[in-house]
Amino acid sequence: MVILGPNRYGKAETRVVRVTRHGDAHHIKDLNVSTALSGDMTEVHLSGDNSAVLPTDSQKNTVNAFAKRHGVGAIEDFALLLARHFVDSQPTVHHARVAIEEYAWERNGASGHSFVRSGRETRTCVAHYDGSHAWVVSGLRDLVVLNTTDSEFWGFVKDEYTTLPETRDRVLATAVNASWRHTGDGAGEWDCEWDKEYDTARQAMLAAFAGTYSLSLQQTLYAMGSRVLAECPGVCEVRLSLPNRHHFLVDLSPFGLANDGEVFFAADRPYGLIEGAVLREDAPDAGPAWE
Amino acid sequence: MVILGPNRYGKAETRVVRVTRHGDAHHIKDLNVSTALSGDMTEVHLSGDNSAVLPTDSQKNTVNAFAKRHGVGAIEDFALLLARHFVDSQPTVHHARVAIEEYAWERNGASGHSFVRSGRETRTCVAHYDGSHAWVVSGLRDLVVLNTTDSEFWGFVKDEYTTLPETRDRVLATAVNASWRHTGDGAGEWDCEWDKEYDTARQAMLAAFAGTYSLSLQQTLYAMGSRVLAECPGVCEVRLSLPNRHHFLVDLSPFGLANDGEVFFAADRPYGLIEGAVLREDAPDAGPAWE
Amino acid sequence: MVILGPNRYGKAETRVVRVTRHGDAHHIKDLNVSTALSGDMTEVHLSGDNSAVLPTDSQKNTVNAFAKRHGVGAIEDFALLLARHFVDSQPTVHHARVAIEEYAWERNGASGHSFVRSGRETRTCVAHYDGSHAWVVSGLRDLVVLNTTDSEFWGFVKDEYTTLPETRDRVLATAVNASWRHTGDGAGEWDCEWDKEYDTARQAMLAAFAGTYSLSLQQTLYAMGSRVLAECPGVCEVRLSLPNRHHFLVDLSPFGLANDGEVFFAADRPYGLIEGAVLREDAPDAGPAWE
Amino acid sequence: MVILGPNRYGKAETRVVRVTRHGDAHHIKDLNVSTALSGDMTEVHLSGDNSAVLPTDSQKNTVNAFAKRHGVGAIEDFALLLARHFVDSQPTVHHARVAIEEYAWERNGASGHSFVRSGRETRTCVAHYDGSHAWVVSGLRDLVVLNTTDSEFWGFVKDEYTTLPETRDRVLATAVNASWRHTGDGAGEWDCEWDKEYDTARQAMLAAFAGTYSLSLQQTLYAMGSRVLAECPGVCEVRLSLPNRHHFLVDLSPFGLANDGEVFFAADRPYGLIEGAVLREDAPDAGPAWE
Repeated sequence: MVILGPNRYGKAETRVVRVTRHGDAHHIKDLNVSTALSGDMTEVHLSGDNSAVLPTDSQKNTVNAFAKRHGVGAIEDFALLLARHFVDSQPTVHHARVAIEEYAWERNGASGHSFVRSGRETRTCVAHYDGSHAWVVSGLRDLVVLNTTDSEFWGFVKDEYTTLPETRDRVLATAVNASWRHTGDGAGEWDCEWDKEYDTARQAMLAAFAGTYSLSLQQTLYAMGSRVLAECPGVCEVRLSLPNRHHFLVDLSPFGLANDGEVFFAADRPYGLIEGAVLREDAPDAGPAWE
Repeated sequence: MVILGPNRYGKAETRVVRVTRHGDAHHIKDLNVSTALSGDMTEVHLSGDNSAVLPTDSQKNTVNAFAKRHGVGAIEDFALLLARHFVDSQPTVHHARVAIEEYAWERNGASGHSFVRSGRETRTCVAHYDGSHAWVVSGLRDLVVLNTTDSEFWGFVKDEYTTLPETRDRVLATAVNASWRHTGDGAGEWDCEWDKEYDTARQAMLAAFAGTYSLSLQQTLYAMGSRVLAECPGVCEVRLSLPNRHHFLVDLSPFGLANDGEVFFAADRPYGLIEGAVLREDAPDAGPAWE
Repeated sequence: MVILGPNRYGKAETRVVRVTRHGDAHHIKDLNVSTALSGDMTEVHLSGDNSAVLPTDSQKNTVNAFAKRHGVGAIEDFALLLARHFVDSQPTVHHARVAIEEYAWERNGASGHSFVRSGRETRTCVAHYDGSHAWVVSGLRDLVVLNTTDSEFWGFVKDEYTTLPETRDRVLATAVNASWRHTGDGAGEWDCEWDKEYDTARQAMLAAFAGTYSLSLQQTLYAMGSRVLAECPGVCEVRLSLPNRHHFLVDLSPFGLANDGEVFFAADRPYGLIEGAVLREDAPDAGPAWE
Repeated sequence: MVILGPNRYGKAETRVVRVTRHGDAHHIKDLNVSTALSGDMTEVHLSGDNSAVLPTDSQKNTVNAFAKRHGVGAIEDFALLLARHFVDSQPTVHHARVAIEEYAWERNGASGHSFVRSGRETRTCVAHYDGSHAWVVSGLRDLVVLNTTDSEFWGFVKDEYTTLPETRDRVLATAVNASWRHTGDGAGEWDCEWDKEYDTARQAMLAAFAGTYSLSLQQTLYAMGSRVLAECPGVCEVRLSLPNRHHFLVDLSPFGLANDGEVFFAADRPYGLIEGAVLREDAPDAGPAWE
């Protein structure tokens, strides 16, 4: 006997740019919105009966229409607004997941209407709503950082396949992919200045990366996560995925040259990958937040 | 009080090519192997004490050494071999996850030593081992398929943001990303001809895609998943992620031309995304299989 | 005094899929078409006067309309048709360049309407037309090939920065990027079975790669190019760009293991890059063919 | 009779990171270096005789050794240094082309050893040297800019395939890919503050993009190129490739909403592509500079 398991459907990567004009001073929000709905969807899978299905095209239209009607402030608010709309307006939809990426722009000189893409990282959020509770996870990805010193790696397990020498000084580099879960009141009401908290969390991770004398990337990961928790009272859990972008010291001895931490080869693959969560002991159950 | 949550670390994307030579007839296996370990890793996060840490470099070395020592047959067997090795040989490692991608090659003409990359999809597997149990998920991604007819979409919910017209004939195209979980005996012993089952599962999905008169991509997804279950007795669950690669009929009426399903615009973004699981009612608990 | 130099403008990457239906047997052509026009375009650059500019949107419409009106056979014919149209119909357009990529599909089983993307390489062509002459270059990219033996590299220059050991047996792998220029009659009339010639050229390169005992990738490049010329009388020049995808023998000696050409690391970067042209001594002037 | 045409070979994408330490204040240069040599290379193509071939591996070693020995200042100087070295030290090498990409980093807070990748664009240069003359082209790519107003498009040619309405206000966005050729003295001596000139050229293009009331992207291109020439006396030619990243106004009328330049769809493909050169009337012959 075969049954339908967990499922969801939606419109991925709706690329919407919202312009706001205050006289000559324009503002832009540049988003990539993905919506996913679930609910009474057994019949559409079994027989193709679409009577419970709000088309993904309508979801895209809703994203665009809401961008006009409500404007776009913090992406977390926009994601929650959309998630609530789908569940509250459609009897067959019991759960909505809305994920948004935001791309940063800054002003091009003194012009009020000219902009330049800035920064290399992408701001992200995922909101869930199930009709009674909401969950919000904020984050960023591709924040690339590098320390030229204050990183060691030694004292590790040596098995028969270990050839790596211990080191007391190495380059440590990674592309930070981080997400942080907001505690909220569990019922979908949020009293959070999302943009301010984003800056605080981002800055906390940068400061922890710079300020941690690292004996392992795991230690740095934990320092970054706990710093976010220390500085963001409304956050209950941080998840980090840190690729260890190896910078290998180039052997220049065949050319009669010393290489005292001066010339490195930035390797592509393979790379170390360190993943971990740091959370408050009393963090509420995550529910579907991370899905 | 801040605590460490779930974590793992390892070497991602070790690109190993294994050549076997039987006289003039050579064989190649082209793999991308990612290992991830977890266990007694609290201290390394808190203080940078690496005494429980098998370096990711050693993991890479193990992949290479095992490719030589044991050869590489089905990727599922190689993944299990590695996963068991890490857990069984390292007291501090309690759980291993090994993910492998395999790239297909075929012979270049009659030559025994010349090969051409073939196919567009990538074969995948993920094996977990925790010291007593093992889990194996096989899969593929980027198997791109398209039907020029036998696809309709109508009878869906119309809300105030719905503008999509109903259609009785459309192009249906997707890039199949599928994974299937093997039942096994729960204890890490597997009696499965992995390669043969891969071919069966792949063919089942292709046949279901071609043979399903589709009223929705969800229906096609369910047909593909249940077909795999019908033809692969050792599989208990199939998960599919199907991007709906929209092919929009181009409006040629401004040029005095009809377009009776002849000229389509293959759009990039946004795209529908249909995700779902199909499983046996008596499927065993998945444990960490999908992580 | 500042002047305008060479320039062109057009619509890049129009993704058009053309379906042809013969009863239940359907056929598809999946193209990516880029058009670029030049001519009386000084004023638009200097003052923004668009009176000589056929919009890129109109170029896209033309691609779609022509796909319907004329059908799509060999991409070379479709490119020539478009190039001629733009020059012949627009007094301000004196030169057109049309580049097309074609993605291959094969039938999904016995179904007349279901297809699977096949092959890994992309077929390409570029056609130029200037009102009196036409030029056509055909090609392919990303045809990935590998020889497990019959490749040596020794006898090279050793300078003070040379550490590479000589080798009498290595893996040789590359992603073939090739283009071949057709002689034509210079006036835009072509008597070529493009599809048949494509198969011949592709097969010639594969055979030359497999059949050449290689002392350097340059030698293999020349063998591939000259084989195309030998088997394609209508081709006067072949240009190849061959990345040397290094497969490094992994040192397994620390683990007490020999590695007699069995385990390789497939490196990403850096890579060798060998580029060269092979042509008939009497090849006509290339004109703008390679631009 | 088949002959060998133009050819070159080298090591592409050597990823070298150079660290300089002045006490606690460290500096990093993050480069991607590609070298390509040509000269007496007929024999290696015809017979595989490598006696004229400096291995690509030695070229990579040279890049690394020179990064140590000479340090890395402006990428143009490093490229020239390498190009001269290969030609001057190897009798069989008559021409060298060295292309470098540089990735920008800024300090992570007040730390002297912690850095964050900054900016989205990549700085580039290409240097050629043939034993007596040198050529240098500097540039950047992926500088993404957008104007929310001051862009029109009307008065264009309307043919039978034109459906685009004229517009008096649109969003104009592009990813600037620009290269500028330096006049030099033709003999390989350069008296240029490369880094300062880079900032000037970049700023000139940004200012021209912001300050040009645009009637066509061609007009903006010309304004950007001529502004660089106006502000950089040592530059004789600018080449720009500007994809027109279409931002389409979303039709919200089905939802009873106006859309007065507020909600846009950022499309991927197809896109306009505007390419052009702006140069001084007395610019010296480009020679191989653009190859």
